[in-house]
Parts: sequence; structure tokens; C-alpha cells
Amino acid sequence: VAGAVAAVRRLPIHAVLVGPAAVLERELARHRGAAGLPLTIVEAPEAIGMADAPAVALRRKPAASIRVAASIVAAGGAEALFSAGNTGATVLAAHAAFGMLPGVDRPALASTIPTKARPAVLLDLGANAACRPPHLVQFAVMGAVYARLALGVSEPRVGLLSIGEEETKGNDLTREAHRLLKAAPLRFIGNIEARDIYSGCSDVIVCDGFTGNIAIKVSEGVVDMVEAFLRGDAGRRRPRGADSRAIPRAFARLRRRVDASEYGGAPLLGVAGVCIVGHGRSSTKAVSNGIALAARVAGDDLVGRIEQGIRGMGGFEP
Amino acid sequence: VAGAVAAVRRLPIHAVLVGPAAVLERELARHRGAAGLPLTIVEAPEAIGMADAPAVALRRKPAASIRVAASIVAAGGAEALFSAGNTGATVLAAHAAFGMLPGVDRPALASTIPTKARPAVLLDLGANAACRPPHLVQFAVMGAVYARLALGVSEPRVGLLSIGEEETKGNDLTREAHRLLKAAPLRFIGNIEARDIYSGCSDVIVCDGFTGNIAIKVSEGVVDMVEAFLRGDAGRRRPRGADSRAIPRAFARLRRRVDASEYGGAPLLGVAGVCIVGHGRSSTKAVSNGIALAARVAGDDLVGRIEQGIRGMGGFEP
Repeated sequence: VAGAVAAVRRLPIHAVLVGPAAVLERELARHRGAAGLPLTIVEAPEAIGMADAPAVALRRKPAASIRVAASIVAAGGAEALFSAGNTGATVLAAHAAFGMLPGVDRPALASTIPTKARPAVLLDLGANAACRPPHLVQFAVMGAVYARLALGVSEPRVGLLSIGEEETKGNDLTREAHRLLKAAPLRFIGNIEARDIYSGCSDVIVCDGFTGNIAIKVSEGVVDMVEAFLRGDAGRRRPRGADSRAIPRAFARLRRRVDASEYGGAPLLGVAGVCIVGHGRSSTKAVSNGIALAARVAGDDLVGRIEQGIRGMGGFEP
Repeated sequence: VAGAVAAVRRLPIHAVLVGPAAVLERELARHRGAAGLPLTIVEAPEAIGMADAPAVALRRKPAASIRVAASIVAAGGAEALFSAGNTGATVLAAHAAFGMLPGVDRPALASTIPTKARPAVLLDLGANAACRPPHLVQFAVMGAVYARLALGVSEPRVGLLSIGEEETKGNDLTREAHRLLKAAPLRFIGNIEARDIYSGCSDVIVCDGFTGNIAIKVSEGVVDMVEAFLRGDAGRRRPRGADSRAIPRAFARLRRRVDASEYGGAPLLGVAGVCIVGHGRSSTKAVSNGIALAARVAGDDLVGRIEQGIRGMGGFEP
């Protein structure tokens, strides 16, 4: 609620809050001037928890907030869906309510990530634990469209995440995907190794959802560990020195630059509607930025552009 | 050569250098008192490059240094093999020369990694891009034996790397491996997410070689990026301040703590002989530490203990 309030205060949008109306009204009332804000509450008495099995929970809870929210968007009552709840349930609900774009078999979660150079787009972050080679080609095309829009790169370089740069390296999935990507109408730069995800050599990095989820979550873990080491180390060795203040200060700046909350969320590409998935640990700012991202990609017609991009593959049949 | 010289100077070992003898002799002569060092040179005129396809190169080059070195160890001329060359070629040469331990289908590269708490063992780092569920159980048993020896943990906690803590999360491989690991004679703590690799919650982290390679190389990339950000940021914002000196100093300490060169290399577990694979970018110190690790695991009879560990699985038939 706080994130939605922050979003409607700074953006020319109207937000629909979907959930238990009594709770939402009580939360909303805590904000100054709430009555005058462009916010509507829609009742949805059920909720899907973070630990619930998505498919089962969706089937058993027809009045779950994510289902109600997705159907409002599908019916034209709103232009974009944002959720920081159960990712699997959000993906399934959006898929069911919006349907897939023609020519796309699977949706993919994409996120902009920081690199040593300009930001890049990484996908799939976990919408599909298992993928087949043609899915990765579709992800590459969708990722390139998103990179053009989100990063302003006219001809995005597309890399395939694998465990060696040579095209023979990797597993069955990456070897066959490499072959297909070479033939696809894309600026394909070949396999990239995981240490180059953040080097800035590629604007779009494509992988299956299991690998992408591992890559993004390892990254979070490494940043946490490095911070703990540097703080602990600086504190232990130079308790009164300049380092003990410098490290926390530098890390606070780093976090502002790389933090997921700055990006707000990951668009679910390939479904016939706008859906932004926020991090489960989203702050008020992250929710506000996620809603802003949803408004922006809806305004920029990301879905229409992806549809064009897929159609533009023309005779390409993997 | 410099790494081997450093190793024999500080350890009670004899090293056999395998490669083009003229080159090795010339390099060796640059070291003070080289003639008196416990070092032997064995001629091997061919070499496998980092970019060569391992299987093809091994077949075409019978006199490649890695093949000659592995056969010396297999014949009892040395107790352990160390290489910082082409990883795939090292794995194949060790496999061919030593054979596999009874009950182990695939070798796995294991490495000790730093965490927020005590170090942990991560495997497979890339010996097998594609694994089946029973392979992961064998990796878990071997990893637990190595953790006991290398980390001194009596009952290592074993975690399965996946994309969600619930046993239903993940892909076909991790779901079936989870079921097998629950039944195996191990202290299995369940799935762990990639952000917990470095949290210290698990002493042994098991995954297929594609995933392990992605995880370890993403980590290298994140550390590089974080360092670049912190240095650049500190430099840009506080050019004359304390931060600009504090950050490089703190990172130098961090690198000493997490750097691969401190660990020296990754043992190849499951083959019937000692083989340590060093990082392709190994420094003199890394090679020296890798040789020291080879000497230590040979002295501690890691191979015999793994054989016992696998046999100790008794009637367990995945």
C-alpha cells in the first residue's frame, strides 16, 4: 500500500489495489490525504502465500488476489499487473489470464542488471526451470526488444550463458541453442561465461530459468558475503581507522546502484499483457519503482513490440 | 616451474615437472640453487592448449604433457597429479590413466569456498556438464568425505543446490536427486538456494557441473564488479578522502581471503588417484598451494577414504 501511494503521488497513474478490502482500507487510511489519491480498492478475500505450491494454490483459491488482479487487467480494467508475491503464482496467473503472444511457447522473467559498463538484460530468471533450445531463441528475441526499450540500445548484443566460450562447450541445451541462435535474425555474439555476465560484453544474456535463477541469487549471496567480509575485516583490523567508516559508506552507495529495489521488478515477457514481478523482499521504494516500471512498459507498448519482434523473425523456424 | 620451486622449498616433497625438457630446464636454471632442489624433469614434447577440444587433442597427442604426467602417477612414479592447464583434458587424462573408484560413475571437481561462517565444499564445478540423479548422490558422499578431511567437519551438512527450498522446486534432476539424497546415509539438509551458497548454512553443496561452473564463475564476476564499483565510486566521489585508500586496502585483504590462489586447486574426486586441477590463471603462489594440496590429500589418503565412503553406502542403491 505504501509503495502504491508513493507511486500515484509521483506518477500520472491510477492504481487498483487488489486484496482484502478491510485491510487495504485500514493501511491506506494511515497515509496523509489518502481519500484524494487516485487509488481504487478491489476486494479479493484469498491470498497465496510465498511457500504455497503455485498451481495447487491457484486452483483452490479462485478469489486469490493475484487471480483477481490478473483478470482485471485481462478485462481491460487496468493496463498492467504488478506483484511482489509468490513468483510462480504470478507467472501462472498472468499466463492464464493474458494468454501467450503468437509464436511464443513460454514466458520468461527478464531483469535489467548492472554491469561494469552499461546495464544489461538477463533472462529467464526462473519462469521455466526446464527449457528446450527454441525457447532460448524466443527469449533472446524478447530480451533484445526489452533491451532496446529499457536500455536504449539500438542493436543489442545477445550472448548465450554457458560454461565455455566455444560453441561445443556446455550442455545439450546450450549447444543446440547456440546453433539456432547463430541462424536467428539477432546480433548473436556467441557463448559467454558466467564471469562475463557483469563485464558488460553483452546487452542481453539468455539462459534457462534454472540457470538464470542460480546466477542472480548467487550474485546476491556474493554481495552479502563481500560486504560482511569488508565490514568485519575493516572493523576488526582498524577499529578506529578511516576504513571502518569508508566501507559502510561505499557499500551503501553500491547498494543504491545495484539494488533490485532501484529496478523495481522483472517483466514477464511473452504473455499478452504487462506483468511485472517484484522481489519477495521488496521495500516501499521497490514497490513504487515496480509500479513505475509497469506504467512505463505499458505506455511504451512493450507487449506490442515483442509481438512485432517475434513476427519479425519471419521465416525463421527453429 | 616457479610454483614447483616454491613448493619443494617449503615442503618435504619431490616434484616431477613434465613438459618440453629444454624449456623446463631453461626456466628452472633461473632459480637460485636449482641444481640442488628435489625436482626431476620428464620430457613431454606435446602440449594441449586452453582452447583445444580435450577429447580430440588427447587422442591426437599421445606425448602431451598431461597424458605423460597422468601415466607417471598411474605407474606409481609419483603420488599425485597437479595441472593448471586445460581442465577438460586434465579430467579426461586422469580418468583414463587412473580409472574410476568402484561405485562411482563420474568424477567431480570439488573446491573449498569461503562463506560468511567456515569454508564449505562445492561440487561439481564442471567435470560433468550433464548429470543424472544418482551421480549427485555419489558427489554428495565424496564431497562429505572431502569436507571431513579438508575442513575438519565430522558430520558435514549436505545441501542440494536448487531454485527453491521446497523439495518440489527445481528441475527434474534436482527433484529426483532430492528424493535419493533423503534416503542416502548422509546428513542431508535439503535444497539450498544459490544465495545461501556463501551463507555458511551447508558444509557440502552439491550440483551438476554446468550449474556449479555457472555459480563459481558468476561469483568471480560479482567480486570483480563490486571491486570496480567501490574503487571507481570511491575514487570519483572522494578523490582525496580516506575512502580512496581504504577500499583498495580492504579489497586486497578480501582477495587474500577468498582468492582461488589460496586454495590452490580443486581435487578431482572419484578417480582412483590424486588429481588437483588448478585455475587457468594460477599465479606462482596458486601453483605452489595447488602442489601443497596435492601432497596433503595424497598423504591423507583421500582416495582411500572416498573408496571407503562409497563402500559405506552399503546396500544403498539409488
